[in-house]
Amino acid sequence: MPLPLLIPSANDIHPVAGVEIGIAQAGVRKAGRDDLTVFRLAPGCTVAGIFTTNRFRAAPVQVCEAHLAARTDIRALVVNTGNANAGTGEPGLQASQTTCIETAKLLGLEADQVLPFSTGVILEPLPVDRIVAALPRAIENCQANNWLAASYSIMTTDTQPKISSRKITLEGHSITITGITKGAGMIRPNMATMLSYLATDAGLPTALLRKLALESANQSFNRITVDGDMSTNDSYVLIATGQSGLIIDTETHPAYAGLRQAIFEISLELAQNMVRDGEGATKFITVKVEQAGNREEALKVAYAVAHSPLVKTAFFASDPNLGRILAAIGYAGIADLDVGRVELWLSGVHVASQGQLHPEYQEADGQRVMKASDIEVRIALGRGDVTEIVYTTDFSHDYVTINADYRS
Amino acid sequence: MPLPLLIPSANDIHPVAGVEIGIAQAGVRKAGRDDLTVFRLAPGCTVAGIFTTNRFRAAPVQVCEAHLAARTDIRALVVNTGNANAGTGEPGLQASQTTCIETAKLLGLEADQVLPFSTGVILEPLPVDRIVAALPRAIENCQANNWLAASYSIMTTDTQPKISSRKITLEGHSITITGITKGAGMIRPNMATMLSYLATDAGLPTALLRKLALESANQSFNRITVDGDMSTNDSYVLIATGQSGLIIDTETHPAYAGLRQAIFEISLELAQNMVRDGEGATKFITVKVEQAGNREEALKVAYAVAHSPLVKTAFFASDPNLGRILAAIGYAGIADLDVGRVELWLSGVHVASQGQLHPEYQEADGQRVMKASDIEVRIALGRGDVTEIVYTTDFSHDYVTINADYRS
Repeated sequence: MPLPLLIPSANDIHPVAGVEIGIAQAGVRKAGRDDLTVFRLAPGCTVAGIFTTNRFRAAPVQVCEAHLAARTDIRALVVNTGNANAGTGEPGLQASQTTCIETAKLLGLEADQVLPFSTGVILEPLPVDRIVAALPRAIENCQANNWLAASYSIMTTDTQPKISSRKITLEGHSITITGITKGAGMIRPNMATMLSYLATDAGLPTALLRKLALESANQSFNRITVDGDMSTNDSYVLIATGQSGLIIDTETHPAYAGLRQAIFEISLELAQNMVRDGEGATKFITVKVEQAGNREEALKVAYAVAHSPLVKTAFFASDPNLGRILAAIGYAGIADLDVGRVELWLSGVHVASQGQLHPEYQEADGQRVMKASDIEVRIALGRGDVTEIVYTTDFSHDYVTINADYRS
Repeated sequence: MPLPLLIPSANDIHPVAGVEIGIAQAGVRKAGRDDLTVFRLAPGCTVAGIFTTNRFRAAPVQVCEAHLAARTDIRALVVNTGNANAGTGEPGLQASQTTCIETAKLLGLEADQVLPFSTGVILEPLPVDRIVAALPRAIENCQANNWLAASYSIMTTDTQPKISSRKITLEGHSITITGITKGAGMIRPNMATMLSYLATDAGLPTALLRKLALESANQSFNRITVDGDMSTNDSYVLIATGQSGLIIDTETHPAYAGLRQAIFEISLELAQNMVRDGEGATKFITVKVEQAGNREEALKVAYAVAHSPLVKTAFFASDPNLGRILAAIGYAGIADLDVGRVELWLSGVHVASQGQLHPEYQEADGQRVMKASDIEVRIALGRGDVTEIVYTTDFSHDYVTINADYRS
């Protein structure tokens, strides 16, 4: 049973003026499921995209980057599930281009005003004809109230939709921010097998929106890991429609800090929900590394702990096997780490001090906190004042089952 | 069911003149099992040791390093299972020292002529009194023919013993090399949770023996990985007794190349057997990376593939999910990798070419080779002429079961 997610009620999911969403069944991989999603953006929107750093970049990622480099007036996004169009070479690029061309024809746009996205199995040709055939139905279906439906239609191995929405007041304007994301396995920093779409009706110039997208990714989507793998297709798109009338032109604008904070919170909530829905997850684990000398070494330690299969299976077993955590800290790659200064807490229980078992630690306390579904591993390195946080899951039988059966 | 290992018949396990081994039940963790092993070395032996690079170095590792730095006339090794004496601070160091002092008393040695080794659970105090109480029985039991028994008495989660032995003729001398090793999980480069003892009756000066130990580790114990974790206790000891009368004083000695080759073969066989006995392993996987620009990038790619949980679960499922392998190559960290030059073979089947599916690849061929228990992943990067090989296993349900239950 996956960890329960916080899914807002339909009344709390707010449409974003300037964004309409249409959904259709294209039968990309399986018939009878919504697998095609079109975002239609009003004129005047700005769009920022952040993409996987995997050297095998799927065709749609390459096309997205080219289109975002070519122009700032993006007007549509097309997302298919079932097939990632990755490792498909020149025919794959042509398939993504065809998706854009056909969408542009239907909407009266140029092809490079359309961004294509694909997720699903890789190394198989994208059945672009099925997508093209379904596009008119998706576009006909476009409406402002389709965010919840879209949170379902972009799912692959996800067991639950991920959606977050809020209204805030900034400088007298009522501002809406709504976002959806998909992704449950193959998740690691740099946004593996994740598609995420956030929109606000505030207006921002493209350069500022890009900066905000990057900053919000670096404290959310780039800080989660399920299995350490990174996909070929990860994409995060931030859209600012400007339809609220509030235009935030610089970082010094009085409304910027409030908007930034809200986008940070929504992106973190969506990212954490991906972890909670991680393939086979039974525990949600926060790994917080404090007192690091710099960000790089903080992340090295956090990821060494978060990726260790031995640590992850111990969490699955609710076993406070502290030795495995300390061993992972020890091999994280800090050559001059003084283990005699390392402190370790499990959900507030001080379990190790000066690199060894805390003298007052009781195994019963460790077992008690390990049984919870949310666990915090807090590590202090005694080297400086940098803190980094990474979110991950345990490793369960279901992880193996899901990933051994995915294609069958 | 673990992968079967090649275990030599008792007749093919040759004692090494100058080495006697004694075994006893100390009840370190559980009663009724052999958990204490003493290697008694004749005068004139040289000894080289290579140890974990984990910053959390277990107490016995620290003591071993100090003793090997202090003197070259090591005369005894003491190995306990059940408790790793790691993360145990000053009392742990004292416990390892006590083991050496008491062994030295019984054998008429100095304490720093004894090397201590521990393996098992970490962060728990070593019950050194039980070891001290059992030492006389182990020493009384010392005999040249105990290698096979020792291959059992050093086991922890191993399901099968690992032992290799051969006789070769070098410059008219009959030379024996025999080795044992333990380790099945938490295995990764730099020799995680592995104890390995090799002895030969050739004679080598300590410096040359050290070089040979390092070289042989780097093509065997440092090239295997089960779960990417690295332990606090890994140790590899190479012993040269000189009792054959053949003394190899330099690398240019005509017998050196032959001895080196035999030690390479034995260390590789022992290392591969640890992988085959990897926790929950159902497949033995060789990851060979060719045409790399340098050793570092070859290993980055090999380990990215070997450590990917998605790749490992696909191997468990006998699923030729090539996309997962290509994705791992793509995130291995070669910033300027031209994926259009990447070639991929699975056990001789050319599955991907120029970064995409090979035009003649048939899924049936991929499935056929994935069903075998031994699989070779061969990757050509098209960047240079460096080759590196890493050995690993799949990720199965049993891996989760074993590691979730280890302490219970």
